[in-house]
Amino acid sequence: EVPDIVAAIGAALGDGPLTGRHAIVTSGPTHEPIDPVRYIANRSSGAQGAAIAAALRDLGARVTFVTGPAAVPPPEGVAVTRVETAREMAEAVAAAHPADVAVFAAAVADWRVENAAAEKMKKGTGGLPVLAFAENPDILADVAKMSEGRPALVVGFAAETEDVVAHARAKLDRKGCDWIVANDVSPETGIMGGAENAVHLVTATGVEDWPRMAKGEVARRLASRIAAELGTG
Amino acid sequence: EVPDIVAAIGAALGDGPLTGRHAIVTSGPTHEPIDPVRYIANRSSGAQGAAIAAALRDLGARVTFVTGPAAVPPPEGVAVTRVETAREMAEAVAAAHPADVAVFAAAVADWRVENAAAEKMKKGTGGLPVLAFAENPDILADVAKMSEGRPALVVGFAAETEDVVAHARAKLDRKGCDWIVANDVSPETGIMGGAENAVHLVTATGVEDWPRMAKGEVARRLASRIAAELGTG
Repeated sequence: EVPDIVAAIGAALGDGPLTGRHAIVTSGPTHEPIDPVRYIANRSSGAQGAAIAAALRDLGARVTFVTGPAAVPPPEGVAVTRVETAREMAEAVAAAHPADVAVFAAAVADWRVENAAAEKMKKGTGGLPVLAFAENPDILADVAKMSEGRPALVVGFAAETEDVVAHARAKLDRKGCDWIVANDVSPETGIMGGAENAVHLVTATGVEDWPRMAKGEVARRLASRIAAELGTG
Repeated sequence: EVPDIVAAIGAALGDGPLTGRHAIVTSGPTHEPIDPVRYIANRSSGAQGAAIAAALRDLGARVTFVTGPAAVPPPEGVAVTRVETAREMAEAVAAAHPADVAVFAAAVADWRVENAAAEKMKKGTGGLPVLAFAENPDILADVAKMSEGRPALVVGFAAETEDVVAHARAKLDRKGCDWIVANDVSPETGIMGGAENAVHLVTATGVEDWPRMAKGEVARRLASRIAAELGTG
């Protein structure tokens, strides 16, 4: 669309609405090892996170893109840090500050396997496995609650399979972030791994229900809203 | 190589050494759901299984290729059945008989999550998850021990991270299969997900240590050995 083209040209010329701003974007799943060959994963393709990073780049932002093992390649023109586990992602995010905005689009595993094995677990020797879990760092809450150097805008994602908006509102309060982009990832929606997304933008003041649209369009809308919020759009 | 080319031409003309024979090949990882978005996976790319299916096809075999969610696409010219879980793979294999040879190259999860949740598990509501596991069907042993209609040759794989040959010999005895193709998948070998493989072919009568070579070459050697064993090579 014309405004996007104008914005992209502006960014290329060094005067996009987010020129001089630094954005951190996380994307993709995390993998939590069980042993050297097995791991716990999730169905995030990384498509939405990659599109958001590209859209922020197109508005002139310098983007640090922290990605788990995603199916979708990272966009060009962003600084990519590849990680596997939630703890690695937390470290990479911590190393990326200061930033003006942080968008946590990754589907981070809430738990890791505390008793991950150094050698492949064998069938039959000891019967069924007993996995002990430990909570992973809460990257969104940790950044949202930074006492010094907090990004001006902290955006979380909520991938839900039921009561999407109610869960997102509760998450906004619990995490202390500014916005939650919430969506329904029930298998029947086809959103996880698909090309489209239908999101609700939950803020302190209300909820916007965006119609189902291409993930690239969700990204461009979100990037425009971010630029407006930072007073640059 | 010239013998391969001759074989491929022969197969195309309908007189390859395995023409008229039916091969079942499994490949790739399985994914075992935890809830609608999380699952347990493993690092199999499906590259070795796909290469074996292609090599058997090139010798004239009709190939049923049962594949989990692999990173590598299935070869052309084989009948593909896509599955996700070990139980789905077992059903697809059971439906594919009778066969002259079965090659179980898939990295099948030994266990599934017995208490997999229909809705996404929430962080904080109930603390850490408790996953109860159940044993998956043992596809290799079930086929190797068929009382009627057993394939003449049943080949298993053993991906190990220590004591590779000893574990493979024990697996051969325990499963009742004819051959085990064993390899070391320790992360430092780079074999899982890589282009090469270094295998040991364990049979009732001995062990052959094959040098490290491209996965396609491992596949062609194995297919030639299969044709010889079936009295057609």
